Amino acid sequence: MTARTRWLFNSRSEIVEQMLSGYAQAHSDVIALSAGLVVRATPKPQGLVGIVVGNGSGHEPAMIGWVGHGLLDVNVPGAIFSSPGPARIVAGIKEADRGAGVLLLVSSHAGDIMNASLARDEALSQGLAVEMVVLYDDVASAPREHEEDRRGGAGLFFVWKIVGAAAESGASLGECAEIARKVRRRTRSIAGAIGTVTHPVSGQPLGQMNDSQLAVGMGVHGEPGTLLGEEITADAVAELMVSRLVEDVEAQAGSRVALMVNNSGSLTIMELSILFRGAANTLSDRGIEVARSWMGNYATTLDQAGFAFAICLLDPELEALYDAPAYGAAFIRVGLST
Amino acid sequence: MTARTRWLFNSRSEIVEQMLSGYAQAHSDVIALSAGLVVRATPKPQGLVGIVVGNGSGHEPAMIGWVGHGLLDVNVPGAIFSSPGPARIVAGIKEADRGAGVLLLVSSHAGDIMNASLARDEALSQGLAVEMVVLYDDVASAPREHEEDRRGGAGLFFVWKIVGAAAESGASLGECAEIARKVRRRTRSIAGAIGTVTHPVSGQPLGQMNDSQLAVGMGVHGEPGTLLGEEITADAVAELMVSRLVEDVEAQAGSRVALMVNNSGSLTIMELSILFRGAANTLSDRGIEVARSWMGNYATTLDQAGFAFAICLLDPELEALYDAPAYGAAFIRVGLST
Repeated sequence: MTARTRWLFNSRSEIVEQMLSGYAQAHSDVIALSAGLVVRATPKPQGLVGIVVGNGSGHEPAMIGWVGHGLLDVNVPGAIFSSPGPARIVAGIKEADRGAGVLLLVSSHAGDIMNASLARDEALSQGLAVEMVVLYDDVASAPREHEEDRRGGAGLFFVWKIVGAAAESGASLGECAEIARKVRRRTRSIAGAIGTVTHPVSGQPLGQMNDSQLAVGMGVHGEPGTLLGEEITADAVAELMVSRLVEDVEAQAGSRVALMVNNSGSLTIMELSILFRGAANTLSDRGIEVARSWMGNYATTLDQAGFAFAICLLDPELEALYDAPAYGAAFIRVGLST
Repeated sequence: MTARTRWLFNSRSEIVEQMLSGYAQAHSDVIALSAGLVVRATPKPQGLVGIVVGNGSGHEPAMIGWVGHGLLDVNVPGAIFSSPGPARIVAGIKEADRGAGVLLLVSSHAGDIMNASLARDEALSQGLAVEMVVLYDDVASAPREHEEDRRGGAGLFFVWKIVGAAAESGASLGECAEIARKVRRRTRSIAGAIGTVTHPVSGQPLGQMNDSQLAVGMGVHGEPGTLLGEEITADAVAELMVSRLVEDVEAQAGSRVALMVNNSGSLTIMELSILFRGAANTLSDRGIEVARSWMGNYATTLDQAGFAFAICLLDPELEALYDAPAYGAAFIRVGLST
């Protein structure tokens, strides 16, 4: 077991609260706290659609670092690996409302869907204009014919980025929801990890793998995957996993994709870059162009030595929104005129 | 021992080469490779001072991610934890030369200084205008009266950022070197870590700590530190370490500082944010204003569960350069007009 069991906290019961306090202080140019919600330091103007995401903590910088211009308006953080409750999500919806409705984006996990659905119903009953879209992308979590049973994974960042740009540009609530569904249709992800991690509050390991085991297809909370052999190379891992994404989304030669290689915690940039290289080679061998790319710590699972690949099939509409300026604590996209 | 021993590579002998290839592919809008050097995708215009840094690999995103507009012109990456040799540094100096001279910035470690000095002498003998400044900031590595024996640490990012901005704005070689020395005088750092890490090529642990031991004052290659007790809180760690920086740099009440809290690998953002909060409280308790802040993975030591604090005493000149636009793979600073 490699899982670390000593953590640098003050008290287990205040981990999330003190994290939010420190993170907001460190990024006070971009975000602020408002009654436990992470909000934009400079609120979105009236008349634009608000975007809200709630999620369990432990996946930072998701999503606290994705609140900002061209991104989310409000993030509702829960306890570690636990969805926030409906009342807090309703508060987030109200906070994000600028008179043009609020889009509630939900990563597909049972607790998140349940709480978000209750929150949406409550907000609707109070006369707010809310639409909810459940997002999923993880090809390992359910077969393609039961796509709606799949989990949310690293590919969801493509949705947050692209829908955030659409809302900022004045798209209506219905248009934003439709773009979210469009990106969902065109996005796939798959994750892998070496060993396991320990929950900082319960002290329990999230899985049963030993420190030299590599598995693919696991979920972001330690849901089990399939073990790979001891001697497999990074290139073979990338080929295996990215091929599965390409086939599932039916990407053809000549298509353009955005590629993400996510670090779920303690993978080194050496390993991440070598995996990126393998993924890009797998795509180019199939005649698919890596038109855009992201690599780094997007969604983590504590300090897991893990990673995920995600691809999004671009088209001119999505590419323009992907390229639109964005400014959050953990993500900046802006052209610099030099 | 928590140190991970399974890595996702293809072959041990090609780790750095394949990392550079993947990292440059993932960030092709910002950087490119040129004969093993990391260079800007869009070279700096003629007539401006070039900035070169060479360093061992294993500290990513340092410094491969800090090449770009308003940052470095050329990074010369060596093998893991090994300085590049003089010939490669000379190649880097030539690559960065835009007719206004080249500033070679060196983090104070014996091998780095030796190789950089040889490279500077060789470049000078070839008629190039080169100045070298050795940088140090780590208060734990030598007493204040032997400041020049101190190691380079996380505070060096303040130098790279500020000198990069000066060079981009047209400062002369002598002015850039003077600014580097000025930031050095006003910057201090100190590091800490839980447990140890394993060298991915040799398989050897970098230190002898067990997985629940926390030490402070260690170097970026596992140089030993002082053990702290099992029950110490994050706030007490931050207070202890940041107080030492404040006293060493003689920061007075009313002064403005930039604060960095660095993640040296696998610390979670939860822990990092809680340490940031503790550091900011320590400073504000002393009447010192945290005017600017950075938090995240700046310089790593592989997947170490470690961290560093650094502060830089600002003044109007440094603050303006700190705020100037910068655009690299791992660091972007730019105001977004919204």
